[in-house]
Amino acid sequence: MQYRFSNKISALKPSAIREILKAASVPGLISFAAGNPAAEAFPVDEIRQITAQILAEQPINALQYGVTEGYEPLIAAVRGWVGRYGVGNERDSLIITSGAQQVMDLVCKVLCDEGDTVLCENPSFIGSLNSFRAYNANLVGIPIEADGLNIAALEDALKREKNVRFLYTIPNFQNPTGATMSAEKRRAVYALAQQYDLIILEDNPYGDLRVVGEALPAIKTLDTDGRVIYAGSFSKILSPGLRAGFCVGPPEILAKMTVGKQTGDVHTSMLTQMIVYQWLTGYDVPAHIAKIQGIYRRKLNLMCDLLDEKLADHFHFVRPEGGLFVWGTLGYAQTLGARAATDKMLRFCKTCTDHGVAVVPGSAFLTDPNGTTDCIRLNFSTPSDENIVKGIDILRSVAAGAQRAEVRGQKTDS
Amino acid sequence: MQYRFSNKISALKPSAIREILKAASVPGLISFAAGNPAAEAFPVDEIRQITAQILAEQPINALQYGVTEGYEPLIAAVRGWVGRYGVGNERDSLIITSGAQQVMDLVCKVLCDEGDTVLCENPSFIGSLNSFRAYNANLVGIPIEADGLNIAALEDALKREKNVRFLYTIPNFQNPTGATMSAEKRRAVYALAQQYDLIILEDNPYGDLRVVGEALPAIKTLDTDGRVIYAGSFSKILSPGLRAGFCVGPPEILAKMTVGKQTGDVHTSMLTQMIVYQWLTGYDVPAHIAKIQGIYRRKLNLMCDLLDEKLADHFHFVRPEGGLFVWGTLGYAQTLGARAATDKMLRFCKTCTDHGVAVVPGSAFLTDPNGTTDCIRLNFSTPSDENIVKGIDILRSVAAGAQRAEVRGQKTDS
Repeated sequence: MQYRFSNKISALKPSAIREILKAASVPGLISFAAGNPAAEAFPVDEIRQITAQILAEQPINALQYGVTEGYEPLIAAVRGWVGRYGVGNERDSLIITSGAQQVMDLVCKVLCDEGDTVLCENPSFIGSLNSFRAYNANLVGIPIEADGLNIAALEDALKREKNVRFLYTIPNFQNPTGATMSAEKRRAVYALAQQYDLIILEDNPYGDLRVVGEALPAIKTLDTDGRVIYAGSFSKILSPGLRAGFCVGPPEILAKMTVGKQTGDVHTSMLTQMIVYQWLTGYDVPAHIAKIQGIYRRKLNLMCDLLDEKLADHFHFVRPEGGLFVWGTLGYAQTLGARAATDKMLRFCKTCTDHGVAVVPGSAFLTDPNGTTDCIRLNFSTPSDENIVKGIDILRSVAAGAQRAEVRGQKTDS
Repeated sequence: MQYRFSNKISALKPSAIREILKAASVPGLISFAAGNPAAEAFPVDEIRQITAQILAEQPINALQYGVTEGYEPLIAAVRGWVGRYGVGNERDSLIITSGAQQVMDLVCKVLCDEGDTVLCENPSFIGSLNSFRAYNANLVGIPIEADGLNIAALEDALKREKNVRFLYTIPNFQNPTGATMSAEKRRAVYALAQQYDLIILEDNPYGDLRVVGEALPAIKTLDTDGRVIYAGSFSKILSPGLRAGFCVGPPEILAKMTVGKQTGDVHTSMLTQMIVYQWLTGYDVPAHIAKIQGIYRRKLNLMCDLLDEKLADHFHFVRPEGGLFVWGTLGYAQTLGARAATDKMLRFCKTCTDHGVAVVPGSAFLTDPNGTTDCIRLNFSTPSDENIVKGIDILRSVAAGAQRAEVRGQKTDS
């Protein structure tokens, strides 16, 4: 039979990255495409001990239904945890979610009617963009620079756009660009939000993965009005497979999100929540974070040093201060039109996969799916150190080959 | 600041039951309000063994990101499991969800634009109704009888209503009525679906909780056209706290649901999925189901025998063949108008809570929130046997008191 789908979902495609990742599970393929934590970053022994203890002492709690807002001891523990970063005041509520992804889904669900506008950094995390698209939100991209959002472009958009419901931003080690918003820009974004009565959805999955420099205060720490919704995650510091995230924000909004979550998945896995609770309260989490920062510092520097050494002529990037990704341009737009440069970038990514290393085309992250870019995103957390070395060698040979092919092409043409 | 919410979410209230359940966590209150499995129905030792083994042998699999469709070995195992019931053919796809609740959310998300119509048994499970309401679907109730949907009313609705996207039905031990749809009606529903090109969402969380009589084939077993989406759950036979459900249906629809799930929670907890997989494939699940059927048979009969014995003058019900609930009428509508009977039923429920036993007003389950009913829902799986006895005694004294109060009221009035 023929099926008819809702308007909001019929145009939505699966994440290009997840499709690439399926290809990337081909044996032997080196993946620079994922955003997976390094396997050695998981506190496996601790989780094993914690889980055994939970199932020995409180099995029924872990297996029975819970309340939608979350496991109360975990809510209190996460309040304390984010309080260390100055996030959340006495008026804010906190709910536990099935990963931070669910926060994006719920915020858009409760704030946006179809056609309403969401301002997004451009490029931005495809998972969040697709969450908003799945409610038929109108995505308006604001260019992002090495120090975060272009503030003038944000103000232009606020003046120009109708029915703007919120601004979505990842201030720390943004996905995909790796950019960190400066403290000045954080204050400027909040001031504009006050001026234009804007809600900010601040997504901070990578904040603890800083490998150099000083942490900057979250935009949420500036929030005197109750206009910042803060999304946090345990995916990068504990485990993504457990699906544990949280949201801190105005109680009115979080109450509506709770109703939305109730109709979505009732509550987050109780076993997951109890594991996170025991880990947060019973272990030295700062020491664990320091350990994984060490792992990512080594891997980030390994990849970036190799890129500097071997691909300086082909790939230009700003070394990120943390996170999981390196973003840069292949430089095609310097000589080609924007569309031709985009096409050449896509061919580059395809050729890399054919030669055994998966990378993500930058176009996957654009707010406008028909937009242009010659950038690509590389991930350094998933591959082994050995595969980082091998993979960069492949990128180099593909890039050099593409250049040679272009030179040959020019000779033939002339 | 003032917040503006989406149309779809602004009118939606938290589940009345969950609000009652929060009250029900008051120490000492006997809850006939929940739908929780009995604590003794959890295979605690098995889950302890399985979880220890998973975290010993495959910790990274359990902690790392997975694919949205679900853990592949589990998908295969669930295919085999439902195949025992004749559910799913070679064309159907199967995805793992974060409880069956997520199936309701995703089906409505992919099939319904705002204002589209969903046909629902009336009364029906509030969690599902709220899932549909959260997409601003137009709920049209079809009366349900002791042997399931009123077929003539279903056909009338199919003739009358515009933009009907699907029919939602719980054929086995329906929530809240306990009714099981007869085999004849299952065939009639499928035939009407063929005639009116209707999609059926068949929700079967309680199918394995039959305590008397023979199992009837799922509507899905009749599905030659790819028009039945089947939702299953491990909440009632294994654990609700783990949040594991699944969906079997046409690949076109499940592909769209997968995209929706990707933007919702990325994937279901890998640890949850691996626990369910090991349990399904490594343990004697039919023996476990026989064991919990024994538990629920005892508790169902205990409650129903006490209701027959002590409340025959106040509460009229059809003894269900399984599931978790007893549904019946307080008989107020025989002497009062529908609205006054509803109000009196609501007072009865309130008085019961005040006297130490929580029950759910039937009005919570109506497709029209302003509808009328003098029915209430009682759950026998959550309370201990001792509390079933105590709770029924309280219901009896409240019912008798209400009757005395009414008689007094009539004397005063006259």
